[in-house]
Amino acid sequence: MASGGAGSRVSCGRDLSCVPEVADTLAAVAKLGFDFLCMPLFHPRFRREYELVPAKSRPGAQTRSDLLLCGRDWNTLIVGKLSPWIETDSELTTERRNSEEALVQELNFCAYLGLPAFMIPLRGPHCANLARILLNHIHTGHHSCMFWIHVPLLDPEDTREDLIENESSKQMDDGGNDEKTWAWWHSFRTLCDYNKRICLAIEIGADLPSDTLIDKWLGEPIKAAILPTSIFLTNKKGFPVLSKAHQRVIFRLFKLEAQFIFTGANRHSEKDLRSYLQYLEYLNQNRPQPNAYELFAKGYEDYLQSPLQPLMDNLESQTYEVFEKDPIKYSQYQQAVYRCLLDRVPEDQMETNVQVLMVLGAGRGPLVNASLRAAKQAKRKLRVYAVEKNPNAVVTLENWKFEEWGDQVTVVSCDMREWTAPEKADIIVSELLGSFGDNELSPECLDGAQHFLKDDGISIPCSYTSFLAPLSSSKLYNEVRGCRERDKDPECHFETPYVVRLHNFHQLADPKPCFTFVHPTSDMNNNRYQCLRFLIGCNSVLHGFAGYFEATLYKDVTLSNVILTPPPHPLSLPMQQPIPLSSGDNVSVRFWRCNNGKKVWYEWAVTEPICSAIHNPSGRSYTIGL
Amino acid sequence: MASGGAGSRVSCGRDLSCVPEVADTLAAVAKLGFDFLCMPLFHPRFRREYELVPAKSRPGAQTRSDLLLCGRDWNTLIVGKLSPWIETDSELTTERRNSEEALVQELNFCAYLGLPAFMIPLRGPHCANLARILLNHIHTGHHSCMFWIHVPLLDPEDTREDLIENESSKQMDDGGNDEKTWAWWHSFRTLCDYNKRICLAIEIGADLPSDTLIDKWLGEPIKAAILPTSIFLTNKKGFPVLSKAHQRVIFRLFKLEAQFIFTGANRHSEKDLRSYLQYLEYLNQNRPQPNAYELFAKGYEDYLQSPLQPLMDNLESQTYEVFEKDPIKYSQYQQAVYRCLLDRVPEDQMETNVQVLMVLGAGRGPLVNASLRAAKQAKRKLRVYAVEKNPNAVVTLENWKFEEWGDQVTVVSCDMREWTAPEKADIIVSELLGSFGDNELSPECLDGAQHFLKDDGISIPCSYTSFLAPLSSSKLYNEVRGCRERDKDPECHFETPYVVRLHNFHQLADPKPCFTFVHPTSDMNNNRYQCLRFLIGCNSVLHGFAGYFEATLYKDVTLSNVILTPPPHPLSLPMQQPIPLSSGDNVSVRFWRCNNGKKVWYEWAVTEPICSAIHNPSGRSYTIGL
Repeated sequence: MASGGAGSRVSCGRDLSCVPEVADTLAAVAKLGFDFLCMPLFHPRFRREYELVPAKSRPGAQTRSDLLLCGRDWNTLIVGKLSPWIETDSELTTERRNSEEALVQELNFCAYLGLPAFMIPLRGPHCANLARILLNHIHTGHHSCMFWIHVPLLDPEDTREDLIENESSKQMDDGGNDEKTWAWWHSFRTLCDYNKRICLAIEIGADLPSDTLIDKWLGEPIKAAILPTSIFLTNKKGFPVLSKAHQRVIFRLFKLEAQFIFTGANRHSEKDLRSYLQYLEYLNQNRPQPNAYELFAKGYEDYLQSPLQPLMDNLESQTYEVFEKDPIKYSQYQQAVYRCLLDRVPEDQMETNVQVLMVLGAGRGPLVNASLRAAKQAKRKLRVYAVEKNPNAVVTLENWKFEEWGDQVTVVSCDMREWTAPEKADIIVSELLGSFGDNELSPECLDGAQHFLKDDGISIPCSYTSFLAPLSSSKLYNEVRGCRERDKDPECHFETPYVVRLHNFHQLADPKPCFTFVHPTSDMNNNRYQCLRFLIGCNSVLHGFAGYFEATLYKDVTLSNVILTPPPHPLSLPMQQPIPLSSGDNVSVRFWRCNNGKKVWYEWAVTEPICSAIHNPSGRSYTIGL
Repeated sequence: MASGGAGSRVSCGRDLSCVPEVADTLAAVAKLGFDFLCMPLFHPRFRREYELVPAKSRPGAQTRSDLLLCGRDWNTLIVGKLSPWIETDSELTTERRNSEEALVQELNFCAYLGLPAFMIPLRGPHCANLARILLNHIHTGHHSCMFWIHVPLLDPEDTREDLIENESSKQMDDGGNDEKTWAWWHSFRTLCDYNKRICLAIEIGADLPSDTLIDKWLGEPIKAAILPTSIFLTNKKGFPVLSKAHQRVIFRLFKLEAQFIFTGANRHSEKDLRSYLQYLEYLNQNRPQPNAYELFAKGYEDYLQSPLQPLMDNLESQTYEVFEKDPIKYSQYQQAVYRCLLDRVPEDQMETNVQVLMVLGAGRGPLVNASLRAAKQAKRKLRVYAVEKNPNAVVTLENWKFEEWGDQVTVVSCDMREWTAPEKADIIVSELLGSFGDNELSPECLDGAQHFLKDDGISIPCSYTSFLAPLSSSKLYNEVRGCRERDKDPECHFETPYVVRLHNFHQLADPKPCFTFVHPTSDMNNNRYQCLRFLIGCNSVLHGFAGYFEATLYKDVTLSNVILTPPPHPLSLPMQQPIPLSSGDNVSVRFWRCNNGKKVWYEWAVTEPICSAIHNPSGRSYTIGL
């Protein structure tokens, strides 16, 4: 039942509602190519009535023996399903109590068998008692079963009604009724306090909800997708295929590494069930190619990293190595320097005018190389200073100089803020921007270097702006919650930004610009305060913000992580408490950039639709050392 | 500036907007009888413009020297006031930055002087930047100043408008505009994460809001009340007095031990300001008498206690002593036994019929005494068994028997659930109820004793019901938050009930019945599940629930903590996260009573207007040992 990554096979299961012979059925299903079997643990029509005679004292086993399969098969190939008659939230006390006992019995039996997952359906908005019993089960005992909460993307009852209503009224429903089943799920997981062992098995029907709603579902912890055979179309050759819209959903589910469960009878009688599996595998092999950034970030999806502190810490060799692999950045820098040189040096001075270019924070030299390439391309002359404060990286720079650059480049082992430059620069080039622009203190560093830039000198980049967008992501919320450290303030991990390749998330609105910095500048006050307001288009829940940046290197040569989809490595700023949102709400967030002369930090608070606490007051949980 | 308790003097201050000679003014004000002086720290018209020339480089001191008063006077007699021109939430960047610097300067100067309190006005809904700077100040440095946030009960702008509008539209405003200033405060303290050093100085105007709104304000951490001289009326003798409605508010503020600040000129020119003070002191001396329960609980207001575990722990002598002082309970028991004896023994059997009465959980004997008094009163004969599991209390019982009771009473040192009774009882009498009824496991104890009750025997009490009501109380929320223990789960203290004499709170709706138990009973399943729904009449915030009980001892003889105002010692059940409420919202709460054979516990969750997490799943934070 191992789930597959990109390139590998898709893991598929077969769902059956009654399995009289478990070993034979499992063998038959495996032969068709399925990886696992979903089945009820108790006979669907065997209703246990614990408090009532005669059922109470009925003799004999309640269900089949565990000896029918070996332990390893139970552990890896069987997903249990809750008996469909169980109604733990019934208003009838007897039915409720009876259902409670049956649920506990099935959960315990599932733990006894050691099943990897157990599927529980949500059939309506009332699920508090179900949540309580499941949570009690999770909190007692040492089993490790995952719970797949089976929720349809659209309420089947609404879908039926829609057939009667006309199209326009269905359109109106978007954002209303269509979100009903999401609301069931959201209530359930909130009651369960976002427990990590409770995840989603979404059922995909013939009708699909709006793209917004699909986006919303894809921010949830989907572990499995249930595909009824009835949603498949038949192609010319009689094979089962899916509509384009369904294919798009499947492709997105591949990215989340969801497993697939086929339910319902074979509807393509001339082919056997293998043809459904083969079609899904065909889609898997033909999924859209990942873009350069997706490949670049592969393996780091939703993995939280602390933002770098390149001023306080010396970066490691491997960190430089990763950065230097950036597929876009250095060609943009080369282009910027090239354009700048052409503008500054007229063609008749190309032999005489030697531009002084200083790379501030030269690292292992990629910007020096990009600048030298630009000079060659522009046929202009350059004298380069490579200023780097990390003495370890200076070793690399000195070697480059010895082996390649020669006298054209002077290596300076110094912090740019303390360097006494021997001459003033025409151009300063730096790559000090973090995922959120100024968060690695580019403004303070470049302000400190500005005194050795000529009055008409150019900074590359010449300006940059941070951006923010509201996020819903239970994955992010749970990951952050898991970062609690014993000896720190209990809110600390919710007041720290993380660099994360967002994957299992829903961005609730387009990013908006937050703070802008320009170089060179006459105003060296780099404190900022900004209030941003986002209109939210669907019922949702706010877990935090994604921070991006956009930089102008030179004129129209830019660099950004905000325009790309999916955005690579934004900065995630979490919220301590999820804030429920209704469609049409505005989210107002206030962001501060603060500085006490020794450190820089951000503070943030939501003030609409309700107020949150101010996060990270006085930089108590997170600061960036100057 | 020490605040006074009941019976002691009221602490009063004088507010002035400009104090040219601080020592002289302080002396003059003290001579009039004031306890402290509120005054600005900087000259009100001295606007400091930090970023602008010439103000930036203006020479000389920014304000008066600290040498004008001795340290002790600054520390105890002066409350600072923020300069009124400071607008930290201005949309104009220059004004905002200038205000930020001025605010920081005043906060720092206040800390330097060591003032006990600093008053900051809230003048509108936008206060995020003010909150941030204040919070930053609190989180840095080691000062201990309290911050009194000056908020008017009603927005003065609305009050002005109301004069023009007619009465009916003003009525409509209740729950809307009238709550505006409360919403300012609620936003501000939420942004400040309920910081304990941030409290309220409410300004009471000539117009008072509705009683509901006053109730709401009185659930907030009010430390001071500002009384403009303009709200005073003049009595026949020319003295200043307050309207009845204002008096009622003042009486309630006395209970919260608020301090009072007089602002504005003397409007009763023939009298001096002393007459205002004397009037307030007159009200203080003539405040309504506390009821028996208020006296009983004096000193324990809003003090959190863990509920007793009389089954697991043996109670201490002092605990029995406190209980025995209950002014109502034992006379009710006596009445119940009296009525029961009259019903069970006809007059013609009064000499022959000896009723067997067993006191289950006799403690130090108060129920034995009440029963014996009842028998005497009814002229009926009684054979009493005093069953008590605490061997220490048995010492007291044996002494009673030796000194007073004689052979009429048999003392049994045994847990009632394990006792082999020598005969069956006509009447069993117990006082096993906690603040929430069944929370000291009365149902389990009495079920265990039922086998030695005659078939027609009577249990006193014969039934009891727990009640719940939703609460808003920032005091309670903060007290609970302060109970965090290092080695426990971080949510633990929010999943524990507390016994607390509620004081600084707002009950958002009338209590509703939750769980009912009847004795004797045929159904010994004491698990329960209940969903209660409360309609909320104003914008507010839910911090938890108060649990009460009502018991029927016998027929119409009852015992309760739900009908009394204020209710004595309810059980408080907190919520991990405050839930914002709008007027007209329903709050649905689900309550479970669970039992695993070894322990009993409650779980609870809110499911309307939004879902909370289920609190105390599987009794992880709080259980009651059987």
